[in-house]
Amino acid sequence: MADINALLYKKRFGRELTDGEIRDFVRGVTDGSFADYQISAMLMAIAINGMSDRETVTLTMEMARSGDMLDLSGITGIKADKHSTGGVGDTTSLVLAPLVACCGVKIAKMSGRGLGFTGGTLDKLEAIPGLSVSMSDEEFARTVENSGIAIIGQTATLAPCDKVLYSLRDVTATVDVEPLIVSSILSKKLAAGADVIVLDVKTGSGAMMKTPEAALRLAKAMVTIGNRTGRRFAALITDMNQPLGRYVGNALEVEEALDILAGRTQGELKTVALELGARILLMAGTVNSTAEGVELLESKITSGEGLKKFAELIKNQGGNPDVAYDTSLLPKAETLIEVPAPGSGWLKSVSTDLVGYAAKALGAGREKKEDIIDPAVGLIVNKRIGDRVNAGDSLVTLHTGKISDVETAKRQILEAFVLSDEPAQKPQLIYGEVE
Amino acid sequence: MADINALLYKKRFGRELTDGEIRDFVRGVTDGSFADYQISAMLMAIAINGMSDRETVTLTMEMARSGDMLDLSGITGIKADKHSTGGVGDTTSLVLAPLVACCGVKIAKMSGRGLGFTGGTLDKLEAIPGLSVSMSDEEFARTVENSGIAIIGQTATLAPCDKVLYSLRDVTATVDVEPLIVSSILSKKLAAGADVIVLDVKTGSGAMMKTPEAALRLAKAMVTIGNRTGRRFAALITDMNQPLGRYVGNALEVEEALDILAGRTQGELKTVALELGARILLMAGTVNSTAEGVELLESKITSGEGLKKFAELIKNQGGNPDVAYDTSLLPKAETLIEVPAPGSGWLKSVSTDLVGYAAKALGAGREKKEDIIDPAVGLIVNKRIGDRVNAGDSLVTLHTGKISDVETAKRQILEAFVLSDEPAQKPQLIYGEVE
Repeated sequence: MADINALLYKKRFGRELTDGEIRDFVRGVTDGSFADYQISAMLMAIAINGMSDRETVTLTMEMARSGDMLDLSGITGIKADKHSTGGVGDTTSLVLAPLVACCGVKIAKMSGRGLGFTGGTLDKLEAIPGLSVSMSDEEFARTVENSGIAIIGQTATLAPCDKVLYSLRDVTATVDVEPLIVSSILSKKLAAGADVIVLDVKTGSGAMMKTPEAALRLAKAMVTIGNRTGRRFAALITDMNQPLGRYVGNALEVEEALDILAGRTQGELKTVALELGARILLMAGTVNSTAEGVELLESKITSGEGLKKFAELIKNQGGNPDVAYDTSLLPKAETLIEVPAPGSGWLKSVSTDLVGYAAKALGAGREKKEDIIDPAVGLIVNKRIGDRVNAGDSLVTLHTGKISDVETAKRQILEAFVLSDEPAQKPQLIYGEVE
Repeated sequence: MADINALLYKKRFGRELTDGEIRDFVRGVTDGSFADYQISAMLMAIAINGMSDRETVTLTMEMARSGDMLDLSGITGIKADKHSTGGVGDTTSLVLAPLVACCGVKIAKMSGRGLGFTGGTLDKLEAIPGLSVSMSDEEFARTVENSGIAIIGQTATLAPCDKVLYSLRDVTATVDVEPLIVSSILSKKLAAGADVIVLDVKTGSGAMMKTPEAALRLAKAMVTIGNRTGRRFAALITDMNQPLGRYVGNALEVEEALDILAGRTQGELKTVALELGARILLMAGTVNSTAEGVELLESKITSGEGLKKFAELIKNQGGNPDVAYDTSLLPKAETLIEVPAPGSGWLKSVSTDLVGYAAKALGAGREKKEDIIDPAVGLIVNKRIGDRVNAGDSLVTLHTGKISDVETAKRQILEAFVLSDEPAQKPQLIYGEVE
């Protein structure tokens, strides 16, 4: 048994842990031989004194190995995955996954459930009547092999060390610690088995990283560490100073994704989804440039192949594929309520986290694992930063249901949307990339 | 309720906590509303980022107030207490307390039980047949008022915050953290109610502070912080590169203290005890210099008053006062075993901590609270640093009993005593003082 005190002393005094010591730490965390209070002392020491790249690579690999490692080697071709650091109206996966699959790169995606603003990809998919995100490993591999795409829930045995660390980080002021973020995200991606992984690192008022510089630093760290593990990683730094899509909520976000795949909707969500998808195609060797990648993905919208692939995904996972062609089959909110602008001006900024909290107040997201979500509720954003707003114009349309706290949501929306007497600039959409 | 996360964030980024925030922290620790893993994250943040003097003063005061504060104001005159950072053969309290009491300064001493090498003052006193260290607060105050001296165990309600912090420090590599040591020691002394407190900060191979510089820094911090709380503090930095007294063990240390009080024994233990006692007399205004204080205390040995006062203490606390005049009434070890020097030379150094562990192996100390100690066992050190040693000379006489692990103790003694071919210097005894 490793002596956790010796490890704590080293990190307290800012010394690097050896690979063996990091392995001992991950083992002790995973098998419960280290106490919570010792683990949290280590997390705080790492938060203050940092970790070298070598330590972070080792921590990532050991965390990935702390549970089952999915073996996708039986599936032919290149398997891709995608991760977002999290935002509001941020459903790029549902757009890019079917399009990429149409280009011959397989999407083998394991997703988590969302905690915070709105649901995660799993919650969105489950808004589709009948769809299930549970599959055995064999079913998952077979579906990816045959259809080129499957999106399922993370099994409990995937990177169990991360579960312990994450729950402690959440209550010890150590969430925003670079080596801990990097190892948490990457370990799960590595364990899930994909060959190429694109990362969407969000920045802005609705993101963990408030500035593009901080997001770029995190993206560089993740790609550097990720590429050292023998997989291919790339990252985009994208804007989260307002909701990415116009629709925020589980069924609503599925609807917007289907609208994009059907060619009915343009906008920032589509742009970011295609740019991310293009990085997957480039890493997979399918295209020679991201511009070519975007063009190829766009052609899968025009041809209708993308929408068809989404219908296939729904069918494979037990849902009603007609939803892909008729979004009225999605769960719908009981009552729509407009939130009018209290004055006139230009929309200068949006506190995107407050928009997320408003969606949560309506019942679209959870605070705790056991909270119930309503797939039908959410909100539609009617004004974008830079837009002219007249008093009384609807800023947001609330889609409400039985569990909605409408007053809270309204208050948060009014606080979130800040008008200015001067014309305001649209924010940049993509701040940079790392490969 | 204070938000522990906000406090953790501040300290993580090295910012000072306000007095109110420190109060909230101490309250949350004491009433159990903060979880162990959050407290330990704070301890690690303090270990790395430190605390200002102002923060440490506030932490100390709030910890003192976290439980009962003993009110000794009903007792006439000045009440004194003493604290040692801990060593081996370090029983200065049993020497200085009766002598100081003979000079009209009252000794109202609350002691802890020892964890580590040998027992604490309480364990030593309990080696005296019949003696009890339990008293009600009223009994304690009455005894101090009438007899000028009482030494009892700390009540469970004294600085309860420290109990929580100390037990977590012990298992999170945050024992040797200056503001935490200072607040731990001082808060208990403040809660115990004395007006003047002398601190004996040990340095050397048997002490937490390995160098005189580190010990001086700690002593300065304690006296600075202590004097800001409205009480009078002074500190000596004294040597722990070998056991202070010749006798190590509970009954053995009582015997050595009685030998000194009877005028039969000289040496380092007596010197340090009188120097510490002289600081109390100086702070109390009884003498005008420490030299005068040492002389006055020495006169209480010569006159026999010191020994008589010890007998009175024993009687007041239910023990057999004849012990003071007849040390053969103390518990005696079953078997004495010499540990002969394996070679010749000069005694160059002693790993004092190993001597302490040897005493513990014999049964004189505890590792855990529930461990049983044997008051009769221990060891007598026959060689001092600088002494000439011939092969076969006894380095140490082991006093063993039923629970003694003699082989371990022997091995530790042989490892502890390092001989040299060159003559070796005696270590300095007193490295400095702070007032």
